Amino acid sequence: MMVFVNGQFLPENQAVISVFDRGFLYGDGLFETIRVFNGKPFRWTQHLERFQHGADFLKISVPYSPQALRDSALQLIAQNNLPDSLLRLTLSRGVGTRGYSPKNADCPTLVMSLHPSLPTKDGPAWRLITSSFRLPANEPLARFKNCNKLLQIMARAEADAAGADEALLLNSDGYVVEGASSNLFWIQDQTICTPALPSGILPGVTRAVVLELCQKLGLPTREANITLEALHKTDGLFLSLSSLGVVPAQTLDDRPLPASNLFPPIRDLYRTTLGQDTT
Amino acid sequence: MMVFVNGQFLPENQAVISVFDRGFLYGDGLFETIRVFNGKPFRWTQHLERFQHGADFLKISVPYSPQALRDSALQLIAQNNLPDSLLRLTLSRGVGTRGYSPKNADCPTLVMSLHPSLPTKDGPAWRLITSSFRLPANEPLARFKNCNKLLQIMARAEADAAGADEALLLNSDGYVVEGASSNLFWIQDQTICTPALPSGILPGVTRAVVLELCQKLGLPTREANITLEALHKTDGLFLSLSSLGVVPAQTLDDRPLPASNLFPPIRDLYRTTLGQDTT
Repeated sequence: MMVFVNGQFLPENQAVISVFDRGFLYGDGLFETIRVFNGKPFRWTQHLERFQHGADFLKISVPYSPQALRDSALQLIAQNNLPDSLLRLTLSRGVGTRGYSPKNADCPTLVMSLHPSLPTKDGPAWRLITSSFRLPANEPLARFKNCNKLLQIMARAEADAAGADEALLLNSDGYVVEGASSNLFWIQDQTICTPALPSGILPGVTRAVVLELCQKLGLPTREANITLEALHKTDGLFLSLSSLGVVPAQTLDDRPLPASNLFPPIRDLYRTTLGQDTT
Repeated sequence: MMVFVNGQFLPENQAVISVFDRGFLYGDGLFETIRVFNGKPFRWTQHLERFQHGADFLKISVPYSPQALRDSALQLIAQNNLPDSLLRLTLSRGVGTRGYSPKNADCPTLVMSLHPSLPTKDGPAWRLITSSFRLPANEPLARFKNCNKLLQIMARAEADAAGADEALLLNSDGYVVEGASSNLFWIQDQTICTPALPSGILPGVTRAVVLELCQKLGLPTREANITLEALHKTDGLFLSLSSLGVVPAQTLDDRPLPASNLFPPIRDLYRTTLGQDTT
């Protein structure tokens, strides 16, 4: 596997960074995970917009233009012969002086790597648990994929321990807001519902795609808060994530969830869209 | 400068880790920063206890015994001829499979590095600001020095931008709880006060030392919540941190703070203690 590191294409075992990189020291960076389908990164523009927003917020300068990044991404996909895969784009603040202050750290680290994608054939619907960890509501750092993911890791470890596929997290206001690595949707009154961005969730690119698809399908959508108890009483729920698109849930904390007939059309249209992306 | 990386002493430019190390990908790790004085790591035992607690919490196994780590730390101090310095000890979960799940990541990365210490002569008292970022109250991940430090970095960047030395952070309950890289103390009614651990603060080793020293000096101590407005009305405040010990504050958000006569005895005893440490 070849990896792109600061402008060079390197074999995996030479793809290294300094132990003084602030990404390693403090999680001082951000990333994107982008589905590559038919050799093309899906919704590249939307991913890059969020990435640029995050870099601006953290005041880390992106050392390549979006076009140069895309060209390198395409080269990486070709070199590795992985037209169906996941692309991870990571930007860290690089090496600086000791301590939290970001001043004098002006040589960022940019890495792109590919990961063989998960099977395109549907797996079983997911078993979900609710995590004991809480996400802060109204957290500005949540508006992009920052490299501080211990809460998500701990939540996911709880799911692993329970034999579940994904963990849902509540926020500090007590609402269920997202999965450790996915956005949450539920179906109620023939409406596709999802938490609003100020609840502290990641503004997922696939989340935005789902809302677009619902509009195309004529399905009403609504942003709302939901408690755990109310979530059990909906007509079904599903998750969205870049790697897999949309995935239905079968249980939540071992209680069965209904399967809504509104889900399959969304999944089918998502698949069609994945093949037609031109951005 | 030589650096300890997974059992090897390497020159700085060879001290590297994989771009797939979860420390770099997600901040999936923890660290300690320990003052080295007269060639010895100050309060080694307390630092290692916190470190072990954090590793247990994250379920990352520490690949060396505390004694082996101490021996390697002493060797690093001798090799670099830095008897007065700061030691950073970092443990990450190493390389695993893609995604947040920590399963299959069973080869942790351990790094120790030294940094020339700041001058022992007193600098001026610190100018403080309050950060616009909020720490979550009751956060279990705050009970050790985890590698997710974006909030602290952003707070410190706000201090830099204001020409201040340190930023204080409020927690989600609205209380002022700690500095970006320091614990907070204030003096009121001849009592040395500091926020309690459930407020979401790091249980600082130097914070614990200060509480010990107050007892030796016969100064009453109290753990309490404090609002920003109340903090302005105290008899003075100071910060504690491993690198510098205790540092008084002269202003908070550009408003002058009083200098308490209870502070100098604490600072003097801290210095004496630093030279006498046998743990």
